[in-house]
Parts: sequence; C-alpha cells; structure tokens
Amino acid sequence: MDVDLNKVTVRVPGTSANCGPGFDCLGLAATIYNDLELTLLEEKSLTIEAKGDGAETIPTDEKNIVWKAARMILERSGYAEKFQGAILKMTNHIPMSRGLGSSAAAIVAGLFAANEIVGKPFNRKEILKFATEIEGHPDNVAPAIYGGFTISTVDNRGQVQTFSFLPKLKLKLIVAVPDFPLSTRLARQVLPKTVMLKDAIFNVSRASMLIAALMQGKEKFLATAFDDALHQPYRTKLVPGMQEVFHAAKKAGAVGVALSGAGPCLIAFSPVDKHIENNIAVEMVQAFKKNEVQADALILDLDTRGAFVV
Amino acid sequence: MDVDLNKVTVRVPGTSANCGPGFDCLGLAATIYNDLELTLLEEKSLTIEAKGDGAETIPTDEKNIVWKAARMILERSGYAEKFQGAILKMTNHIPMSRGLGSSAAAIVAGLFAANEIVGKPFNRKEILKFATEIEGHPDNVAPAIYGGFTISTVDNRGQVQTFSFLPKLKLKLIVAVPDFPLSTRLARQVLPKTVMLKDAIFNVSRASMLIAALMQGKEKFLATAFDDALHQPYRTKLVPGMQEVFHAAKKAGAVGVALSGAGPCLIAFSPVDKHIENNIAVEMVQAFKKNEVQADALILDLDTRGAFVV
Repeated sequence: MDVDLNKVTVRVPGTSANCGPGFDCLGLAATIYNDLELTLLEEKSLTIEAKGDGAETIPTDEKNIVWKAARMILERSGYAEKFQGAILKMTNHIPMSRGLGSSAAAIVAGLFAANEIVGKPFNRKEILKFATEIEGHPDNVAPAIYGGFTISTVDNRGQVQTFSFLPKLKLKLIVAVPDFPLSTRLARQVLPKTVMLKDAIFNVSRASMLIAALMQGKEKFLATAFDDALHQPYRTKLVPGMQEVFHAAKKAGAVGVALSGAGPCLIAFSPVDKHIENNIAVEMVQAFKKNEVQADALILDLDTRGAFVV
Repeated sequence: MDVDLNKVTVRVPGTSANCGPGFDCLGLAATIYNDLELTLLEEKSLTIEAKGDGAETIPTDEKNIVWKAARMILERSGYAEKFQGAILKMTNHIPMSRGLGSSAAAIVAGLFAANEIVGKPFNRKEILKFATEIEGHPDNVAPAIYGGFTISTVDNRGQVQTFSFLPKLKLKLIVAVPDFPLSTRLARQVLPKTVMLKDAIFNVSRASMLIAALMQGKEKFLATAFDDALHQPYRTKLVPGMQEVFHAAKKAGAVGVALSGAGPCLIAFSPVDKHIENNIAVEMVQAFKKNEVQADALILDLDTRGAFVV
C-alpha cells in the first residue's frame, strides 16, 4: 500500500450567518459541503482543479483563497520552505456568493487540510483565529470550524471568542437559493453607521431569547426570536421579494425566517415534518418566482461536527 | 383558630435589570426582599404602614403604588365593588431608588397579594402583563415574578414574553449601594436616541454569549460577556467613581460587573468564595469612598423562586 503522507481530504460545511437578530455574531453550519483534496509538493508547482458550483470562476493561480489559507499554515508552522507547491482538487456543493459561506468554507478547508498534513501544530481555536484574519470576521468561519450554532465575540484587540452549541430542539433548514449572486461588500454598503437605540434593544432581546430557546429546546419562545431590526430592513431592496418569501415560509409553517448572511439566500427554520418542510420549500420558490427571481430550494439539517478529515 | 381569608402575606425579591449588555431585556432576582401583608376590607378605608428602607417617604393614601396594583387586580377580576378598602403592612429591605427594583417589587407585591386573596384568577404570565402595564417595561417586574435570570421581549403590539432560567454555574452577587438615589427618568434622559451600529453588535454578541455561558455553566466565556456599550458609557457621569468601582471589583476577582438597572447601585458577579466575595465588597466600597461616595455593600445570592406567598 502506497500511503501519501502529504495528501489529505477535508470536508467543510456551508454556513448561514446572522440567523436574524444575531447580526455579525451568530452563525450555524448546515449539511451541505465542499471537499478539498490537498497534496503538498516540495517543488514550486501549483495545480488547482475544481468541480461543482462556480468551478469555472475559481482562480487557479496564487490568488486562490484555498491555497492562500494553506500557505498561511505553512508559513506559521515553519513548513513554507519545505512545501512550496500543491495540488488542490475541490468538489464544491455550497453555492457561491449566495450567503452560505462558500468563501469561509474555502478558507477553512485550506487551513484545516494544511494543518493536518504538517502534523496538527494548531488547534481549532488557533485555526479560527487565522480564518478570521483572512475573512475579516468570524461569522461564517466559526460555524464552519465548530459545527452547530455559534456565538462569536470580538474584543477591542481583535481577539475572537466562539461558543458553539447544539440546540435541544431539532429544526430543519429550508434554504431558498436565488439564481443571482450578491457581494457582501455591497450588502455592507447599504447598512447605516448609526441605528435607533430601540432597534439595538430589539435585537439584543431577540438574540438572547433565541439562544435561550434553542439551548433549552422551548419552541414557543422562538415565535419572535428570529426577528431583526438591524440589517435585514436595509437589505430588503437587494433581494427582490424578500418579505414575500418570508411571509410565504411562515404561512407554510416556518418557526422563523432570516436572510442568510449577506444574502441573497433566505433561510427558514422548520419543524421536522416532511410535509411542512416540502411545503415551505415550494412556497419560498413560488414567492420568489412571483418577484421574477428564479430560485432553488435546499432542505438541510444542522451540521453538528464542523470541518473534518474524510 | 380564626383564619382571616381576606389577608395574605407575600414576599417579593429585589431585582437587577440589564446585567451589562442586556439593556432593557435581561434581569435577575436577588435574595433581598420586601414583605407585604395585605388585608382587603369591604369598607372604603385605607391604612398603610411601612417599616424599613425609605418607609417615611412612602405615600399612605390612594397614590400608593402597592394599593394601585392591588386595585388593578380587584378591578379586572370583578372584586372592586366587594373590596373597597385595605390594610397594607410593608416591611422593606430593598433600598429605594437605587436600581434594585424597589418599585417593581411594590407593584408585584400588590398584584400578587390581591390575586391570592380573590382566588388566583390570574397566572404569573397575566400578572407579568399587568405589572408591565403599570411599570412601563418588564425589566424588573419579570425577575421579581419569576426569580432567576429573565430575558424579556416586547413585540410591536406591546405583548411581553419572558423566559426565565437558572444558570448552571453559581455566582454571588456583590452589590455596592451608594447613599444617594437616582431617578430612572434622569438616567433615561442621558441616553442618545441613536447609537453606532458597531455598539449594537457589541451588545448583541455579549448578551448572546452571556446567556449561553450562564445556561451551560461555562465560566471562561463570561470574561467579556458582561460588557456593555449601549447605556453604561452614557450613565458613567451620573454615578461618581463608577469605572473605578468596576475596576476595583474586577481586580478583586469579580467575573463581571454592571450598573444595576438605572443605578446608582453597581453589581459585581463573584465566584462562590467567601474570601473573594468579601474582598470585592470591601474594594467596591473603598473605590466609591475615594470618589467621595458613601456606600454599603450587600452580598447576595440569586433568588430562584420569585414572588411567593409566605
């Protein structure tokens, strides 16, 4: 048997940041994955192959974000001299630039795979730190690394702390994926620098309620816990039909609805019930269609594991 | 034995609202109590006696808030004709106008006692609704009714929902009580109508982290979870020495510190350790003294029960 010690395959979940009231701090991982097979080479040669969603748009040179992330590990672990090149084979299922954390997954995959090959010098918390450095914020990289739901705080020195947990109640995740991308930069530009104090209180109370209800499995407290006043109202105009899709999902039985990350994906939280799940999916796609947006629906579970070696 | 069916004694805990990041939504109940012995009379006669903190300032006529609350129950339960008067005997331990929920305790005592005498037509949730109507917000009345920690949301129709829980880790509550009162109205006036979006995010993330860390008993995640950017910075000027007292408490071993409600009380969260608890209490009082504020310290536990019939 010929084992290649410089090769590893990792699988990283897609993620949905914000979850309604938890703007820039809550996130969750979902059962949709990107795989990366990384082979580190001693020679300075780079081969990047991608299959799946958005494969044709992925840079295949030094600008590739997966390779950048892998190189960060090599540099910080003292292996940058030994391994100067690589072969990357990616199989992507997470839709790109849709608000499901495809770029976070790419970064985490690169970090995780390289870390594994050079003997795991860094733990998950350190990988989170590196991933946040590259991505700029922990919203998506935290759940991609830990799985489950995550709460992240950033202190004034830029230190990130992440708490991950699995809720006591099971919810299905119904994601409507529109056929157009939305840049996170644009979605940030529409946000105001200041907000009403009452809107801040609105979100503080909902996010607190959301965490409590999920942790103790009390569904009746979720009724208004996914509501948001800090970012979604400003982003409505970027996703045609957003409010109608939310309304349709709730009418079909969703416990809560939210813009997924910076969008344009919309996520509905459903009780575990095949009929309700399907109904929500159909109604969300229909409501988008009425607004002349083509969308697909994904019916997913919460990923409970985070990034792992296959 | 002569049992007076129209007489009852209830005990209601003092409360600390906000708990740092949870401005206008988080609260806790502490082991300091006001007692109310209420006797309902058929004749139109009102006798109000008070002992204890601030007793001499309590109105003894129809303006008395305890009696107002009791009358609300009588009116809504159809007993206002039958019982037109009362004898109220109050024994107050909760300092008045200091940010420990003395007015909320008074309201809850009146509601609770009258409800008991007329045969409990209303449950805790309904009493919460009435108490919020009188007080204007649920921050203090919610923990006074339920005990433990509480998270309250108010929806756009004014409906209040409260989630109460007991944390998995035990913390002592060290409260420094300055010798001057502070009106909630004044403490609200210093707040801006708008805040920075980043400050809103700061609090959303801390409040979420606080709930998670308390619920799962993970002390290390509390380190920055009591921090606030939405109200305390503006209220610092109303409580001379506030930042120094916070600093002194932390240096003496406090896990977290907060302005209690609208102040002027400051609350420190301490590990259960007699030496540390005492040290925090002494250091907080000393730090106030350096700022020419006379203060007493209370070392309390979380009340786990809320208002009850003695």
